[in-house]
Amino acid sequence: MPLTDSLVQKLVVLGRVTDEPGKLTRTFLSPAMKRANALVAAWMKDAGLKVRVDSVGNLIGRLEARQRSSLNTSHLEPKTLILGSHLDTVRDAGKFDGPLGVLLPVVALAELKRRGIALPFHVEVIGFSEEEGVRFASAYLGSKGYCGKLTAADLAMRDAEGISVGDALRKFTNGKFSLPEPAHKRSDLLGYVEAHIEQGPVLEAEKLSVGVVSAIAGQSRFKLTWTGQAGHAGTTPMNLRRDALAGVAEFAVGVEAIARRTPGLVATIGSVIVSPGAANVIPGQVVHTLDVRHARDSVRRAALMQIGRLATRIADERRLTRRWQRTQENGAVGCAPKLTATLARSVQAVQGKSISLVSGAGHDAVVLSSLAPVALLFVRTRDGLSHHPDEFTSARDLDVALRVMIDFLERLAAENLDNR
Amino acid sequence: MPLTDSLVQKLVVLGRVTDEPGKLTRTFLSPAMKRANALVAAWMKDAGLKVRVDSVGNLIGRLEARQRSSLNTSHLEPKTLILGSHLDTVRDAGKFDGPLGVLLPVVALAELKRRGIALPFHVEVIGFSEEEGVRFASAYLGSKGYCGKLTAADLAMRDAEGISVGDALRKFTNGKFSLPEPAHKRSDLLGYVEAHIEQGPVLEAEKLSVGVVSAIAGQSRFKLTWTGQAGHAGTTPMNLRRDALAGVAEFAVGVEAIARRTPGLVATIGSVIVSPGAANVIPGQVVHTLDVRHARDSVRRAALMQIGRLATRIADERRLTRRWQRTQENGAVGCAPKLTATLARSVQAVQGKSISLVSGAGHDAVVLSSLAPVALLFVRTRDGLSHHPDEFTSARDLDVALRVMIDFLERLAAENLDNR
Repeated sequence: MPLTDSLVQKLVVLGRVTDEPGKLTRTFLSPAMKRANALVAAWMKDAGLKVRVDSVGNLIGRLEARQRSSLNTSHLEPKTLILGSHLDTVRDAGKFDGPLGVLLPVVALAELKRRGIALPFHVEVIGFSEEEGVRFASAYLGSKGYCGKLTAADLAMRDAEGISVGDALRKFTNGKFSLPEPAHKRSDLLGYVEAHIEQGPVLEAEKLSVGVVSAIAGQSRFKLTWTGQAGHAGTTPMNLRRDALAGVAEFAVGVEAIARRTPGLVATIGSVIVSPGAANVIPGQVVHTLDVRHARDSVRRAALMQIGRLATRIADERRLTRRWQRTQENGAVGCAPKLTATLARSVQAVQGKSISLVSGAGHDAVVLSSLAPVALLFVRTRDGLSHHPDEFTSARDLDVALRVMIDFLERLAAENLDNR
Repeated sequence: MPLTDSLVQKLVVLGRVTDEPGKLTRTFLSPAMKRANALVAAWMKDAGLKVRVDSVGNLIGRLEARQRSSLNTSHLEPKTLILGSHLDTVRDAGKFDGPLGVLLPVVALAELKRRGIALPFHVEVIGFSEEEGVRFASAYLGSKGYCGKLTAADLAMRDAEGISVGDALRKFTNGKFSLPEPAHKRSDLLGYVEAHIEQGPVLEAEKLSVGVVSAIAGQSRFKLTWTGQAGHAGTTPMNLRRDALAGVAEFAVGVEAIARRTPGLVATIGSVIVSPGAANVIPGQVVHTLDVRHARDSVRRAALMQIGRLATRIADERRLTRRWQRTQENGAVGCAPKLTATLARSVQAVQGKSISLVSGAGHDAVVLSSLAPVALLFVRTRDGLSHHPDEFTSARDLDVALRVMIDFLERLAAENLDNR
């Protein structure tokens, strides 16, 4: 698999480009991000792409559509297909989350070039400069910039040293920064296709290398505070207790039951702080998070109604007070049916079977969906692990993903010819 | 209520004797403990008691039985009734926990003296020097010393400055310390009676000033560690999760149900640590405490068997591992039926109604039960609050407790005469 070897080598080499010695950390506009852009730019050029960096640090490699033959008299300007993902990472990251979606199309395009195949549409491969939200509290700075969606509020966010996004971008552009326009008109685009590691266990459980994403789940996140009455664990009879933790335990069991009986819903209580937190004191207060996601907003909202009624009943029965704070709310993003169907046919052709997945995590495709039809290919990750140095995708799975990407480009080329 | 005023004044004055300015803290053998002993000694002397301090710092006030008349030809030496509680406190304590059980009999004996009533038995009122276990990890140092139960292991315990109990006692006794013998033979004792704040909500719920304790609960305490698999909250479907917190929630609900259907059982999960503890990560590990108490050891053991089976079922069903560590184990102590019945008759006479309570917390009576029949009087505390500056018992409740103590002494005197 010399092609796959090329991809693996690139992932390994890029995985060494870091701001922190001994671990992989690359954040927005950092020195390592600039070195990463330079490295990937060289590989893009080898694949025949023309490379530039935009005003928010996105690396953009462009391959023009093949010259129309004199027989082709269409007056239509070829459309553009966007491929890519992000080149920034979390702290102490793995080397697949992001870079895979940039390097996979670079290697695929290099292979098409080697075979002498030219595409009837323009291709832009993007290494987005920021997706993880590490340096600033705001994520998707790269894709928002590309899509003309950056706001003044985004520019005002400050990093740990007090530098704002705007300051950082003015420095990056030598003072010439202004809020960027969308890179394309929607009508000029064939779509945006992103390959990304699954970061979940479904493909592994299904024993498949890749799957096609149908939607990116909408998400609600809350902070809940339950207050009862602290008391002596030895001297307070069960019937006189107002135990905040006992209430939260009943709530957690009920939330899990709601999620289990609602296909596709995931609900998670990830952080729990119990006060006062001593072995011999009944918990008087519990603060915890609740994260609820589903591919359909109506299903998520209906589940939240059930969860709200559950909390009310428990609080009433146990004489607890509870306070909800909504800390995050994102609507679901549906992938484009036609583009996704084409991608699924490529998966079917290469893997023998295609499955449809919901993405529980957000990706650059969320922002790109404002500009173009989007499709998202998931690649199996070992133990569903990501955001960790042990994040791993096998060469075998990378090989399948690479063949799917090549098949998809050829299939889209054929469809595109048919459409003329 | 001049008598109650005297008790309240003494509690207030003693409550100002502290090692820490601005809050009440008196620990074993500290300067404040020595001043407290001197202050209480003066009040004991006013009540007609002869005062000494034993080799572990216990303050002992003794009132000899009245001279037998020439008509009384019994050759029996009068027995001794022990009354008391502890004079040490937790850090930032309330002023009732401990001192109440020392000052209540002092004021009661002063009243009997005023009325010219002499008792047919000796009385020793003890202010134990250590019960709270604050300075050293070991508690009950005062009562253990009085009962001849101090061990070499107790003496080897060290405080935060590295001073051992043995070192502290050698300094306290000017180098003359040796492990003390029991202060009395069991056959010489009528019993030990302790008055203590309830530190719980039962008397408040029953609208009663005092109640009689039937037993001091036995206690098992555990640290449990549940391990599942951390994972992405968005990308891991419910059926592929091994969520340690969901398992602990089910366990907590089940433990509460077992405690609720077992009369008198209390079970508490007071401390819970969730890892990794992020809103978007499924908890991979939870460590929590479990505290189980009951007045009958057999009931507590049976409940622990049920709880153990519950944990096994949950761990199996959820593919979690769990580890139990037993951190504490104390058997129940039954109060002496005859002495307790006499105390209950006094409560009935003064309050119109007597109720029987289980003490969920340990007291000096636990150690004294090795030497003498014990009885324990509980006095109502507001909101069940203790170990806190807001700890409070009303003058009305103190008045009831005082009249119960006087009635009890007179009743015991009458019984004791009858027995001759």
